[in-house]
Amino acid sequence: MELKHFIDTQDFSKKELLDLIELIRMIKSADKQGATPRLLPDASLAMLFEEPSTRTRISFELAAKRLSADTLNISASASSLSKGESVLDTARNIEAMNVDMIVVRHKSAGVPKILADHLSSSIINAGDGCRAHPTQALLDMFTIREKLGRIEGLKVGIIGDILHSRVARSNIVGLTKMGAQVTVCGPSTLIPIGIEQMGARKTYCVDDVVAESDVLIFLRLQRERQEEQFLPSIREYAQVFGVGPERLKKAKKNVVIMHPGPTNRGVELTAEVADDPRSVILDQVTNGVAVRMAVLYLLAGAQR
Amino acid sequence: MELKHFIDTQDFSKKELLDLIELIRMIKSADKQGATPRLLPDASLAMLFEEPSTRTRISFELAAKRLSADTLNISASASSLSKGESVLDTARNIEAMNVDMIVVRHKSAGVPKILADHLSSSIINAGDGCRAHPTQALLDMFTIREKLGRIEGLKVGIIGDILHSRVARSNIVGLTKMGAQVTVCGPSTLIPIGIEQMGARKTYCVDDVVAESDVLIFLRLQRERQEEQFLPSIREYAQVFGVGPERLKKAKKNVVIMHPGPTNRGVELTAEVADDPRSVILDQVTNGVAVRMAVLYLLAGAQR
Amino acid sequence: MELKHFIDTQDFSKKELLDLIELIRMIKSADKQGATPRLLPDASLAMLFEEPSTRTRISFELAAKRLSADTLNISASASSLSKGESVLDTARNIEAMNVDMIVVRHKSAGVPKILADHLSSSIINAGDGCRAHPTQALLDMFTIREKLGRIEGLKVGIIGDILHSRVARSNIVGLTKMGAQVTVCGPSTLIPIGIEQMGARKTYCVDDVVAESDVLIFLRLQRERQEEQFLPSIREYAQVFGVGPERLKKAKKNVVIMHPGPTNRGVELTAEVADDPRSVILDQVTNGVAVRMAVLYLLAGAQR
Repeated sequence: MELKHFIDTQDFSKKELLDLIELIRMIKSADKQGATPRLLPDASLAMLFEEPSTRTRISFELAAKRLSADTLNISASASSLSKGESVLDTARNIEAMNVDMIVVRHKSAGVPKILADHLSSSIINAGDGCRAHPTQALLDMFTIREKLGRIEGLKVGIIGDILHSRVARSNIVGLTKMGAQVTVCGPSTLIPIGIEQMGARKTYCVDDVVAESDVLIFLRLQRERQEEQFLPSIREYAQVFGVGPERLKKAKKNVVIMHPGPTNRGVELTAEVADDPRSVILDQVTNGVAVRMAVLYLLAGAQR
Repeated sequence: MELKHFIDTQDFSKKELLDLIELIRMIKSADKQGATPRLLPDASLAMLFEEPSTRTRISFELAAKRLSADTLNISASASSLSKGESVLDTARNIEAMNVDMIVVRHKSAGVPKILADHLSSSIINAGDGCRAHPTQALLDMFTIREKLGRIEGLKVGIIGDILHSRVARSNIVGLTKMGAQVTVCGPSTLIPIGIEQMGARKTYCVDDVVAESDVLIFLRLQRERQEEQFLPSIREYAQVFGVGPERLKKAKKNVVIMHPGPTNRGVELTAEVADDPRSVILDQVTNGVAVRMAVLYLLAGAQR
Repeated sequence: MELKHFIDTQDFSKKELLDLIELIRMIKSADKQGATPRLLPDASLAMLFEEPSTRTRISFELAAKRLSADTLNISASASSLSKGESVLDTARNIEAMNVDMIVVRHKSAGVPKILADHLSSSIINAGDGCRAHPTQALLDMFTIREKLGRIEGLKVGIIGDILHSRVARSNIVGLTKMGAQVTVCGPSTLIPIGIEQMGARKTYCVDDVVAESDVLIFLRLQRERQEEQFLPSIREYAQVFGVGPERLKKAKKNVVIMHPGPTNRGVELTAEVADDPRSVILDQVTNGVAVRMAVLYLLAGAQR
């Protein structure tokens, strides 16, 4: 497989997703044995982040360094973006300096696609608005397969603010393609109309989704949404949709508990649930580095 | 040629500028063939930027990494500068850590010179106030020579806010020294009194300067100046001094269109002009990396 | 000596502090001769800084790069810390990405200890609240020994805002353990009650402490404290406790003048005193890099 850009989960067939997962497995295994090949010694990677990020930015940066590539951090506040330059113009300038790959996170949906359409550098989507976060979906799929041996036929529940979640959208697309049955659950104001057309079922009953799922993906409730009156209060949300040890008792014995982070402990899930032995939240973070190594490796191949 | 600091275009003779341009040409050519020698494996470079910058900071960072030097980013907001420490004190501390070179951008004219007078590290001026931006002037001169084969005898028009432009000042000095005839053009409030003493002619008629020039350098109209009442309005500026396809018809057939970036499309030039086949705006950005590699290489020689 | 974490001066015996100082001496000497061994080629270091810092952050970053380790900068404002994630959660995520060492600076005392208790990565305290700054104390002790050949039996005066100073606390602990006699001096509102129990004497008379000390450590008067009404005014502080050339005349001939920086020239000491031939303020900065190299080297050994 050769990849020019990495924009969206929906750009890949089931076969390609399986190939990607296999590549990630090999890279993770080599890395664990300290046998990471220095695959990208002359590559350079610009990180154009318009929104704050710990996990994703560091994960890409570490992935690049393990492969011996150079990284450049360009945050919106310190860059010409704050002088009103368009992101396309900024990216064109980065490309003109012979940077091979640009990792972009932007609050506007569609920005990575626009860059990919206009540039010859490889573009990697690290999250665009509420639209897509494909490396997160890929690491979630990899982690599920690592824990349960398969994705096909699994029941996956995604609980929380579906409306504003790029992670939810990318996961619905990817998991459905891989043969899982996805159910989304949250307050009606936070489930987008027409979500069923993406292949997901919906429910407002968190107890049902906890009881029937093989995998539970919790989403961060973004406190800043509250003032927009999607929710009566954070406290009520935690009571109605938050999952604590009591509610978790109804779950399957070997349920896999996931969260893209950062967690709001005490809101969408309690500390007990986040730290439950069945929680793989930190495994997701660990796998994120191998996933980004795989993506960088594939794109660097296309640049050559 | 050995260089201790790189502060100002006016510190160089015509012969030295030609030697610099030749060195840049060799480095650019080697880099293009993937044969960049790792010239600075033990050098370290601190980037002390008190103003936001994409192009210049990244360009220096990439140049340093291509030569295998280490870079350190020190932005004003995250550093002791925000605790009220003077920039000289900050730089003295950086030097005490055995950093070889300090790239400095500062809103006050003269800061790089003060640092050079007091420190034994090599100082590189990446822009000081409205005074000088010598690596930008050098990359502009290199780009002109690359496109037209010479600088001597050319007519260069610089259009826009000359008053606040360190790029204009450094280019007037350098291009005049190289034998070009520079004409500046802009609203009378934005052309400094006595500009003729730097060797430039001035005109308020943009059509004249477009028609007669071999090279057109557009300057970014800084929107934040507007409130200081230098201008009736951005819109009026765009009508009177902005260059669009109509106005460009009067230009020479092989005119070279330049802009130090970031561009304000629709203000000093339209998108059609910025993207015209004769525009070398992105070539300037590409050449910027080779220029900075050459400067770092020369200064590192002096440090040894 | 094997070290898992580096949290506090009080965790070390006198013998261990002497061994550390000897290791620093060897590393400094090798580095000066350009013979720094690339000791940490596969190590990665995350810098989790919640407060601004020039010296300390850069010093760690340079130390890591000299040893060939990779560094990652995580500032509070650009990270998930600004999304309300707890610092422990952030650190757990960094660790999950197989980062070997985390350098942490935090405004709350005790944060590095909490991280060390919960993580298997090595934690290095780069300053926690008003509590401790052990690498600074170590570099101060190293510098004193370098200049005067010993610490045992010396009289050390620490002048300024003792109450808010982690540097003062770490130095009192370390220097006392090494056999020095420490006297603190400052306005009564800025000397914590019970300081004598840490082994220090106290005085409100700056002339006495200047006259009798072998080493004078000045502390930065933090202007932001003024509004909390610890002080009538900065100006009065400078008159009563600030040291200028007149006051310095009473000092011993070979007194060693120190300051952890950044200095407030004209407040706690004048420019003449800061630049006096007996001032070792910049030597402290230089030694800081060797100190951090030694600490990283020891901790990396424990990680293996």
